Amino acid sequence: MIEFFTAPAPNGWKVAIMLEECGLAYEPRWVNLAAGDQHTEEYLAINPNGRIPAIIDHAPGDGGEPVTVFESGAVLLYLGEKSGQFLPTDLRGMSRVRQWLFWQVGHLGPTLGQHGHFHLYAEEKLPYAIERFHRETLRVYAVMDRQLGQEEHIAGPDYTVADMACFPWVRTWKAQGVPLDEFPHVKRWYDTLKAREGLRRGVALGSDMRRQGEMSEEERRNLFGTGKAKLL
Amino acid sequence: MIEFFTAPAPNGWKVAIMLEECGLAYEPRWVNLAAGDQHTEEYLAINPNGRIPAIIDHAPGDGGEPVTVFESGAVLLYLGEKSGQFLPTDLRGMSRVRQWLFWQVGHLGPTLGQHGHFHLYAEEKLPYAIERFHRETLRVYAVMDRQLGQEEHIAGPDYTVADMACFPWVRTWKAQGVPLDEFPHVKRWYDTLKAREGLRRGVALGSDMRRQGEMSEEERRNLFGTGKAKLL
Repeated sequence: MIEFFTAPAPNGWKVAIMLEECGLAYEPRWVNLAAGDQHTEEYLAINPNGRIPAIIDHAPGDGGEPVTVFESGAVLLYLGEKSGQFLPTDLRGMSRVRQWLFWQVGHLGPTLGQHGHFHLYAEEKLPYAIERFHRETLRVYAVMDRQLGQEEHIAGPDYTVADMACFPWVRTWKAQGVPLDEFPHVKRWYDTLKAREGLRRGVALGSDMRRQGEMSEEERRNLFGTGKAKLL
Repeated sequence: MIEFFTAPAPNGWKVAIMLEECGLAYEPRWVNLAAGDQHTEEYLAINPNGRIPAIIDHAPGDGGEPVTVFESGAVLLYLGEKSGQFLPTDLRGMSRVRQWLFWQVGHLGPTLGQHGHFHLYAEEKLPYAIERFHRETLRVYAVMDRQLGQEEHIAGPDYTVADMACFPWVRTWKAQGVPLDEFPHVKRWYDTLKAREGLRRGVALGSDMRRQGEMSEEERRNLFGTGKAKLL
């Protein structure tokens, strides 16, 4: 069994999708970010970065003690190898998936995270910062659109963990004000993926727990160490 | 032989260090970012994200056609597997390295990149944005310091590609105004690594090509699609 430490947010959904798609037995452990669960010593022993997601695999492939994995990209590769699904095993296919997985983690995610903050959540509206991350948002969408104009999926012909990594962030397109129609290949890919049963179950996980309404100062501090909010 | 597409900047140095450390034969191909080399169709066929670094391996392990790899994290894993060095092969060791590699790519790199931009390069000084990324910079340093207080290297007892990924960004500490003395375990690790011959050759690669002085408007546009500069 896999313990899955998560919260209803894009980086958690990446792994939720994979767990639902690959069929490994798991149990969600909800990390209440607004309450500061992620800052406890107990949680930092699981994820030293104090963020979601993370897993503990109680039946690892080498038959030894439980294995803990943090960072969504590393968790996706771990689960791909464990399940033998959604991750090619040949040198070229594996490398292509890793390239786009790192691209998601290093570009798509941070860019949309900052764009969401400055565009939607920051109490102070800073045109320079909004414009900077908006421009970069359009750039990363253009990179995806070009790729999806050449390949059916993000990392080639097959649906892989690279798609699962990108989908939850693209899913925020409307709130982020992204003109999705201007990226027809991304739109085609997004609409196709959206119909998958496993993926739908993944992004639905914890949807009844989404934080609603205004946050208290303490909740803001727990989320950010500051009075400014970010929830995507 | 490996063609190594790079420029003298932190993400390029990660791979330069690995190539020097592992001893694989390579030839640098300089990408002139200010001149816009990275936006050409020819380069986008190598790196669809239009950034550095990337490699073309002309003698891949499967004996087939040359293999192209972009994204520094994916390149480091590729070279670790190809050379059989600086990357454990057991399930746990390999997973630990990947966790910290994704951490570098998703947290340390983007945070210091944005901090560098708003703190050092942006023509408009925005206290809110500077403070946001300064706070996050101190947080990621605290995560590293805690880890390096428990382990000799970033991903465990051994020197791996995870260290090579983090080093070039920590190397910017002085310019970024990071109080390194407040992170004694990071300082110990940094000073130890700095003495390695291979690493020194890696970060020295292209040091004679570092861009000096004021940029023209066209150079700024090539670097950013904007009139604001970022060079680290």
